[in-house]
Amino acid sequence: MAAEPIPTEPLSLDDDPAFPLHRGGKLEMRSTIPVRNKDDLSLAYTPGVARVCTAIADNPELAYDYTWTSKVVAVVTDGTAVLGLGDIGPAASMPVMEGKSLLFKEFADVDSVPIALNCTGVDEIVDTVIRLAPSFGGINLEDISAPRCFEIEDRLRAALDIPVFHDDQHGTAIVALAALKNAARYVGKPLSELRAVVAGAGASGIAVSQILIEAGIGDIALSDSKGLIYEGRDGLNPVKQRIAAITNRSHLTGSTEEALRGADVFIGLSGSTVHESCVATMSDGAIVFALSNPTPEVHPDVARRHAKVVATGRSDFPNQINNVLAFPGIFRGALDVRAHSITEGMKLAAANALADIVGDDLTADYIIPNPFDDRVAPAVTAAVAAQARAEGVNRV
Amino acid sequence: MAAEPIPTEPLSLDDDPAFPLHRGGKLEMRSTIPVRNKDDLSLAYTPGVARVCTAIADNPELAYDYTWTSKVVAVVTDGTAVLGLGDIGPAASMPVMEGKSLLFKEFADVDSVPIALNCTGVDEIVDTVIRLAPSFGGINLEDISAPRCFEIEDRLRAALDIPVFHDDQHGTAIVALAALKNAARYVGKPLSELRAVVAGAGASGIAVSQILIEAGIGDIALSDSKGLIYEGRDGLNPVKQRIAAITNRSHLTGSTEEALRGADVFIGLSGSTVHESCVATMSDGAIVFALSNPTPEVHPDVARRHAKVVATGRSDFPNQINNVLAFPGIFRGALDVRAHSITEGMKLAAANALADIVGDDLTADYIIPNPFDDRVAPAVTAAVAAQARAEGVNRV
Repeated sequence: MAAEPIPTEPLSLDDDPAFPLHRGGKLEMRSTIPVRNKDDLSLAYTPGVARVCTAIADNPELAYDYTWTSKVVAVVTDGTAVLGLGDIGPAASMPVMEGKSLLFKEFADVDSVPIALNCTGVDEIVDTVIRLAPSFGGINLEDISAPRCFEIEDRLRAALDIPVFHDDQHGTAIVALAALKNAARYVGKPLSELRAVVAGAGASGIAVSQILIEAGIGDIALSDSKGLIYEGRDGLNPVKQRIAAITNRSHLTGSTEEALRGADVFIGLSGSTVHESCVATMSDGAIVFALSNPTPEVHPDVARRHAKVVATGRSDFPNQINNVLAFPGIFRGALDVRAHSITEGMKLAAANALADIVGDDLTADYIIPNPFDDRVAPAVTAAVAAQARAEGVNRV
Repeated sequence: MAAEPIPTEPLSLDDDPAFPLHRGGKLEMRSTIPVRNKDDLSLAYTPGVARVCTAIADNPELAYDYTWTSKVVAVVTDGTAVLGLGDIGPAASMPVMEGKSLLFKEFADVDSVPIALNCTGVDEIVDTVIRLAPSFGGINLEDISAPRCFEIEDRLRAALDIPVFHDDQHGTAIVALAALKNAARYVGKPLSELRAVVAGAGASGIAVSQILIEAGIGDIALSDSKGLIYEGRDGLNPVKQRIAAITNRSHLTGSTEEALRGADVFIGLSGSTVHESCVATMSDGAIVFALSNPTPEVHPDVARRHAKVVATGRSDFPNQINNVLAFPGIFRGALDVRAHSITEGMKLAAANALADIVGDDLTADYIIPNPFDDRVAPAVTAAVAAQARAEGVNRV
């Protein structure tokens, strides 16, 4: 029994409502001040604008006050890992990037610009984003395939003094952590005693594992297409070597399925399949996050026969782990305080704020807020801004 | 007697109305479709967006219909030649770039994104813009210093199949040609019999000379800081060598002032000064375009003692040669027909359309329309689109 598939192939451009909706794209640029006559023009453009330019040249910090750069985020991709579609290239990735910009705007009033690059080399992408950076107040990396995405983000974070955030990693990680905190509370087990298995060691699998470790999970083991990742396994790339060093303390080897026996948590981020019989071997009060889209690793109705809490990435089942719960408020908060970066502390603060919204309403089917809960973005924004100030990475 | 100076230095941030106007920048991004609930989300974002991406991956031409790339222009600078301020860097250039985006939107409903790059090498800028290109339907180069601007534009035009247009060159050239056509008509001299002197061999001086030659002017001589440019002069860079080969057919040497004796047209694009006594040596029915901003080469009231038609770059005198008459309609027309490029023919068509608006209302003080004449952008748009179709550089 699989979740009913959602079509990803167009039926026909006429029959599919996604196409008329997308005609002409989903974004527009607006000017915020009027230009009705030559007096307007002489202030907004020459000669008045020259005085603003001169002031910024004399004091670069004024760019934050007198340009839009401090409020605008670049949504940057190379089109190599677009949704579940893979490497479809920059042009075909644009509808997703525009969608991201749309969500930034609708959920947290963050202005953003989709930038799809037709280069895939790490050096090329890093150099290009550094060159663009004076035009933006933050960089949201999107749908860049692993393992390049890790090095690209690391190098950009080191080079730039504005927030750089790979949403496929950290957005997913933050929301998954928030959901897991509430799930653990629901099943009555402390996070520090949970043993988790994460299927998938791509961008989101690595980032979810890292944030769960930072949050103090008991133990966690990742698997990739070759099975469980453990220290010393042959052929691990540097990213997997690093994660192997801090995960899987019981040195499990073999398959995801074997590791699930007695595990408290399964988090699927791989697009693979987990059979009901394996879920049945998990501990009492098991937690299953089957997050692959559009087809979860195990159908949620099946998982619920054995697990006490089940979440997916889909909007048509309870407990949707959706990045949109995190990234708009995270950038809104970071921009509001003109943060130099988005720290691990700010990510944890975002996850805590998200988890706290559920509060006393916690049930098996309500471990994470709905994306359209209008408390979400303000709560995440406030938590991220407060944490930035607490850590002193803010400018204002 | 100099034109009353317009302050370019801020008095104080509080007293100068340009500053409150610029607070927070001049642009915002808007989404064009609503996201009120999960049904909206499932069409505008996952899973619906995946079907649009797949369709574009299968047929890249669909990006024109289903993304905003076909309607959005990148306004790209490196901040090296910003207005008359020179090399103030990318951050300080942003108010001008935002101003350009604002004018694009207000005058011709062209969406655009300001991109200020923190690199100045020709290779770096060319590579960066090529990498960005999948995100945009056109590239407006802005305030990049000569002679790099020529090579950058040439290489981008060769590499990309979307319009690339360096406005400091061609915008000025198009408007100057339109104004000169009407000025010549007013003084009763055919363009083909005019001898012109252009002071300044930067981006605009070179481009104005080129378009006037294309339009069939009698002869034209350029000068730079070392005096008149002629074939064989020592130390000419390649751009000046090329312009020397097609200008100054009477092989004038010496100073701008010497060349003005008996000349029909003076076009100042240098920021230098021309004395009244020199203007007095020009031919009967002389035409003076003193275009430097904020201080014209010669005060227009002084020039009018000797010249029959005078134009400046300023809005507080008659006959303002202002790029905003050209670039919004040029890109609007090019985008409307999804042109591969902006050809010389399209530039000449834009100039003719601009000149024609004046029509029978021609006077010494009305050789070019006012920027707020709402016939301008539609006329330029229509002329550019029609010429693109006539030349077959259109996609639709």
